[in-house]
Amino acid sequence: MKTDKKINRQWLLARRPVGTLTSEDFEYKESAVPTPSEGEVLVRMLYFGYDASQRLWISEHGGYMKPVQVGEPIRCMGIGQVVSSRHADYAEGDLVDGFFSWQDYVVTKPDAQMPLRILPKADYPLSWNLGVFGVGGLTAYFGVTDVLRVKPGDTVVVSAATGATGSIAGDICKALGAKQVIGFAGGPEKCRWILEKAHFDAAIDYKNDDVEQRLRELCPDGVDAYYDNAGGDILDTMFLHMAPRGRMVLCGAMSSDYSDMDGFQGPKNYVLAITKMLRMEGVHLFFYRDRLAEGVAQLARWVEEGKVHVEECLYEGFEKAPELLASVFTGKRPGKMVLKVGDPE
Amino acid sequence: MKTDKKINRQWLLARRPVGTLTSEDFEYKESAVPTPSEGEVLVRMLYFGYDASQRLWISEHGGYMKPVQVGEPIRCMGIGQVVSSRHADYAEGDLVDGFFSWQDYVVTKPDAQMPLRILPKADYPLSWNLGVFGVGGLTAYFGVTDVLRVKPGDTVVVSAATGATGSIAGDICKALGAKQVIGFAGGPEKCRWILEKAHFDAAIDYKNDDVEQRLRELCPDGVDAYYDNAGGDILDTMFLHMAPRGRMVLCGAMSSDYSDMDGFQGPKNYVLAITKMLRMEGVHLFFYRDRLAEGVAQLARWVEEGKVHVEECLYEGFEKAPELLASVFTGKRPGKMVLKVGDPE
Repeated sequence: MKTDKKINRQWLLARRPVGTLTSEDFEYKESAVPTPSEGEVLVRMLYFGYDASQRLWISEHGGYMKPVQVGEPIRCMGIGQVVSSRHADYAEGDLVDGFFSWQDYVVTKPDAQMPLRILPKADYPLSWNLGVFGVGGLTAYFGVTDVLRVKPGDTVVVSAATGATGSIAGDICKALGAKQVIGFAGGPEKCRWILEKAHFDAAIDYKNDDVEQRLRELCPDGVDAYYDNAGGDILDTMFLHMAPRGRMVLCGAMSSDYSDMDGFQGPKNYVLAITKMLRMEGVHLFFYRDRLAEGVAQLARWVEEGKVHVEECLYEGFEKAPELLASVFTGKRPGKMVLKVGDPE
Repeated sequence: MKTDKKINRQWLLARRPVGTLTSEDFEYKESAVPTPSEGEVLVRMLYFGYDASQRLWISEHGGYMKPVQVGEPIRCMGIGQVVSSRHADYAEGDLVDGFFSWQDYVVTKPDAQMPLRILPKADYPLSWNLGVFGVGGLTAYFGVTDVLRVKPGDTVVVSAATGATGSIAGDICKALGAKQVIGFAGGPEKCRWILEKAHFDAAIDYKNDDVEQRLRELCPDGVDAYYDNAGGDILDTMFLHMAPRGRMVLCGAMSSDYSDMDGFQGPKNYVLAITKMLRMEGVHLFFYRDRLAEGVAQLARWVEEGKVHVEECLYEGFEKAPELLASVFTGKRPGKMVLKVGDPE
């Protein structure tokens, strides 16, 4: 694989994947560096972020975005540097993040579904803009503050608590004065991590514990607020343990493999929402595009105060892009997974 | 069957029912009239109301109330007249409604899960206190105004639109200025009823129409507010047609037979709540016990203005109690089903 930056390395979708991803779903290609048209910018990629949604974007349905077609580069959230700009808001050298794809050079037209965000000069690592100050951290911020509206004294449960969103969500709840923040994680090592690194009060090992029993012990008066990144059986079980008028924020469904829109499991216990008058509400960053700076500012304060723990799963090397995506669903390490593919100038 | 009022006629649970109700699930018995203890009142029953929840109350789990045990009279919402009172708030002759059971005479201790409501002298039929001014109408009122928060210009969909709750919910939405109120009903006759008697703008016949096609035609810009009395496939389909930030109120699940808590179908499309940031929230009258009078007053104004249509399915005769309960799930006529079993003095 050449590293000459005049060549545009690409990872394309080789075929419509079925179920678990394999190397044959992707095709490596080298192309010429593209040229921006009026209103577009050319960006050289520095970091690729990893999100479960990427699996859905390459499915036939695409989820909430246009599906990536066979022969197109794989869409990702990423960080890059503007090489040349034909858009008034962006200048050469700007560091930006937003929707890109697995290429060295991406031509993009800002003002699409998400604005291309110009990253401030800051004293934290550039890649944090994909994690704690990116989709994961900001979704957690608005999910907890605006949807769950966690308040002092609340008992909160967070699933996928070692994830890029879940770990930040738990820390935010604690920062807001929640009485007890309990995280679901898979295996003793991850359970230890959310207690020792993140600021959770208790962990439930969904792979080994009797989940119902643990919830009864830990939350005898019921759960006031539940941050759902899991879906599946965990979501279903949570309905049994919610306190009257409890709130749930729906953020992800990591119990599924995101391989298609029909692969999700509906929670049959949802009827308990009637008699307990529960509120379930989704959260998606598209609805907060005007408030991102507010979220970053508050998260930065909490990080500085040590209340929000930042963890990255940082890899390096353009060639690793496909195998890392598969690992999102097979138990990656805690924190935000990021692949470094270049250095800023 | 004797009608001598000194005998207490009763319909008891003969066995734990499985699936569809049959006459063998009930046992007729005649007992002595019971005597109230301190803090209790003795009520002679005048009307039994019919609710889907009754089926759940006689299941092993009981739903949100203690299950009725074999040998106990079947629980119902009803209207009665106080025969003798050993409770300071109630006097002989008071007309009351609340939780009772299928007997001529019920001894009850007010201030249980729901207060026993003293019915005002009014110029409308007494039985309306079980319908438009009872659980159905009041749940619709709070479900629409407090949970869905329907506002002028909204496109609203209501399922089980000929039901005691659904028909009132639709009329309330229209009274609040909704642009379009669409009802789900089963069969052309019921569809006609919601257009001609209730104030719906359009009907979808879920038994005969192509539901998806009809929703696309009627709601090209999506549904702002959905009042769910159906659950099952209709609820699942509605997720596909909700507008971004749409609201759903969860009120019932008439697509199920309510025979046990495990018999409900989870909506697999609930994941769309994430990307559209939908809000789903249950409604249950237990949480509004302090605001019932407000609801009755507003409903009465709308009824007087002709904005809310009142329909009753009125039957007479104590002996009919069991067969009517089975009919709740097998397509009863529109409106609130009520059985008259006595006259006030």
